[in-house]
Amino acid sequence: MAAARHSTLDFTLSAKADGETILKGLQSIFQEQGMAESVHTWQEHGYLATYTNKNGSFANLRIYPHGLVLLDLQSYDTDAQCKEETDSLLNKIEEKMKELSQESTGRVKRCKRIRKQTSNFCTVEILALYTVYMRHRTHLILPPIVRGGAIDRYWPTADGRLVEYDIDEVVYDEDSPYQNIKILHSKQFGNILILSGDVNLAESDLAYTRAIMGSGKEDYTGKDVLILGGGDGGILCEIVKLKPKMVTMVEIDQMVIDGCKKYMRRTCGDVLDNLTGDCYQVLIEDCIPVLKRYAKEGREFDYVINDLTAVPISTSPEEDSTWEFLRLILDLSMKVLKQDGKYFTQGNCVNLTEALSLYEEQLGHLYCPVEFSKEIVCVPSYLELYPLTRRLVTRKCLLVPVFPCVTFIP
Amino acid sequence: MAAARHSTLDFTLSAKADGETILKGLQSIFQEQGMAESVHTWQEHGYLATYTNKNGSFANLRIYPHGLVLLDLQSYDTDAQCKEETDSLLNKIEEKMKELSQESTGRVKRCKRIRKQTSNFCTVEILALYTVYMRHRTHLILPPIVRGGAIDRYWPTADGRLVEYDIDEVVYDEDSPYQNIKILHSKQFGNILILSGDVNLAESDLAYTRAIMGSGKEDYTGKDVLILGGGDGGILCEIVKLKPKMVTMVEIDQMVIDGCKKYMRRTCGDVLDNLTGDCYQVLIEDCIPVLKRYAKEGREFDYVINDLTAVPISTSPEEDSTWEFLRLILDLSMKVLKQDGKYFTQGNCVNLTEALSLYEEQLGHLYCPVEFSKEIVCVPSYLELYPLTRRLVTRKCLLVPVFPCVTFIP
Repeated sequence: MAAARHSTLDFTLSAKADGETILKGLQSIFQEQGMAESVHTWQEHGYLATYTNKNGSFANLRIYPHGLVLLDLQSYDTDAQCKEETDSLLNKIEEKMKELSQESTGRVKRCKRIRKQTSNFCTVEILALYTVYMRHRTHLILPPIVRGGAIDRYWPTADGRLVEYDIDEVVYDEDSPYQNIKILHSKQFGNILILSGDVNLAESDLAYTRAIMGSGKEDYTGKDVLILGGGDGGILCEIVKLKPKMVTMVEIDQMVIDGCKKYMRRTCGDVLDNLTGDCYQVLIEDCIPVLKRYAKEGREFDYVINDLTAVPISTSPEEDSTWEFLRLILDLSMKVLKQDGKYFTQGNCVNLTEALSLYEEQLGHLYCPVEFSKEIVCVPSYLELYPLTRRLVTRKCLLVPVFPCVTFIP
Repeated sequence: MAAARHSTLDFTLSAKADGETILKGLQSIFQEQGMAESVHTWQEHGYLATYTNKNGSFANLRIYPHGLVLLDLQSYDTDAQCKEETDSLLNKIEEKMKELSQESTGRVKRCKRIRKQTSNFCTVEILALYTVYMRHRTHLILPPIVRGGAIDRYWPTADGRLVEYDIDEVVYDEDSPYQNIKILHSKQFGNILILSGDVNLAESDLAYTRAIMGSGKEDYTGKDVLILGGGDGGILCEIVKLKPKMVTMVEIDQMVIDGCKKYMRRTCGDVLDNLTGDCYQVLIEDCIPVLKRYAKEGREFDYVINDLTAVPISTSPEEDSTWEFLRLILDLSMKVLKQDGKYFTQGNCVNLTEALSLYEEQLGHLYCPVEFSKEIVCVPSYLELYPLTRRLVTRKCLLVPVFPCVTFIP
């Protein structure tokens, strides 16, 4: 896959950096590659040397005077040879830096194991390298960042951390009238549904579906169920197995259903192949007018499961602020719930404590008093803990014990 | 926390890049910041412009002629002002690039939401930004890479992917005679034990301990159990609760026990406070001679749980290769297992398929025939699926059904 590969190699010295010596020491390595040097010197802030190669690759060597040496190497890879050249250059610089700084190098951030693992390797090599890694455990390099490639492997977590997925294929990528819909293939998680940049659900994530359905503690037999959103079909597929009386799913975006029924079959099975079945119907509609209609008709459900995207697709023209929109959904849902009905929904990443507590605050502002419980689950593809707060909001104020899928609560 | 922050901003244009126009268009932004420009031009490979600021920060603008524009911005942050300046510069460049490339910009990789979330924010802002994010969902920036800071947040997965943890404190960092021992605090996972650079176990990871004990399907009452390794005390703590006859744990590294009994108490409880208890003893020894001694004495256990590090701390002088070492452990373990005893161990990241199948191959080369089963579990802090292959290797060749903690098997 053609893309720019950005490699980093960081040295934290245990003493101040002798910039001139480091520059001179490394110069010959770059010269051997035929790279042209250009040095910028600050009086108080150290050095920046830039090395450009005829083939378009370049390196930056930034020497911070207090003892931090950062190397960046960027090249546009079109073949394996480029990778080898990069690896060889990084090896040489590491060796030289060790020689130069000797006792003053506190940590060299570099790990042969990781570099080798990302290329093709034979297993004997892995084990040998594992051993190297164990012996020189302070050597770590960050895996290179792949930039501008056809496949984007970086989908930051909700709390803004950089994480790289093992994505190897773009399976589906379309803009609907409501959002961008991507389905990407991950080696370990299967196909992943990403709506407008947010990782929604992967085929590995039955834990999410189980939790938002009440963690196996609910009896759906003969029950009336309303699903808001849920276009991936995961919840519908699981509930239909449990012999409900009727499940109504209200999904705004036909294109999500189209993509998922084709590419998320481990999640939805064949339940999305038809919009109606023996005990279910799927309405392609905005859920707000549907909820209003049901409330007016006095229609009531045993369960309402809110699986809408964490951020509403559209709040206008109903309400001004997102919180008001969320409260509107909650209020309308309470209206269509039976007296002893239950409402389940998802929360947000556990680290977004402020947003989570604000959400809980909203629950005190509904038209009827409610109580709720929550649990934290580990959804494999999310790469972060997620309080799938099955907020058991009921008009009877039931408080139901939480499911210890992950029993650790920070 | 003082560290270098490396921000990236990537533009994939839908047409070839007009380098001169882009350079000229952005020039004034860097000039406004008082940054000095230096441009390198390739005949066939586009442009590299380097901008240096008096305060020591610098930027690289790499324009690849086929339509990829990569901006890198590195600054050494000592205060919030630096972050603001970086943000403001990135904003201006993004705006200008949109203006310049208009129809030719296919994707701008940047997301205000993420940038704002990593700094302090008020919640109204989050929601507003969520909305911005939804509207301009193609704008994504990768979270900045923090380099050379006191706390290392990047601990690549076993299959070599870059992942950032929410680590905010170094709790323990010591070199023992065997390995480097780190205990780092994560906001969502609690304290994490990292042995020689490998994430071993976090306080959130009861799922690991449960799975390696047989996923709740074993009856340990009155049983004789041998734990190999297990210095974090998780397995010992959980088994002791189940009224075994006697648990013997053989851990080579006293310092792991010392660190964990202080800082991993959600994992080990008080079980490591004393090396002996009513129904357990901890031997601070290499497990190989202990296993040999037990085998010679004819001592037998109902369960052997191998919780040694994925890579042996030391293979010498016993065996040459790591595989032979692993087989030695397996053979010796089979010798000290009762006829209907069970052996549990961990596997490796699911993506390391070659290493996993080689491991399974070894099971055919033991001195006695064995059968095994395996399961894949999601250990929260690992950020990858991990076949905690509870290889039920027994001399009676029992095959036991796997525990569907994660039912998806790729």
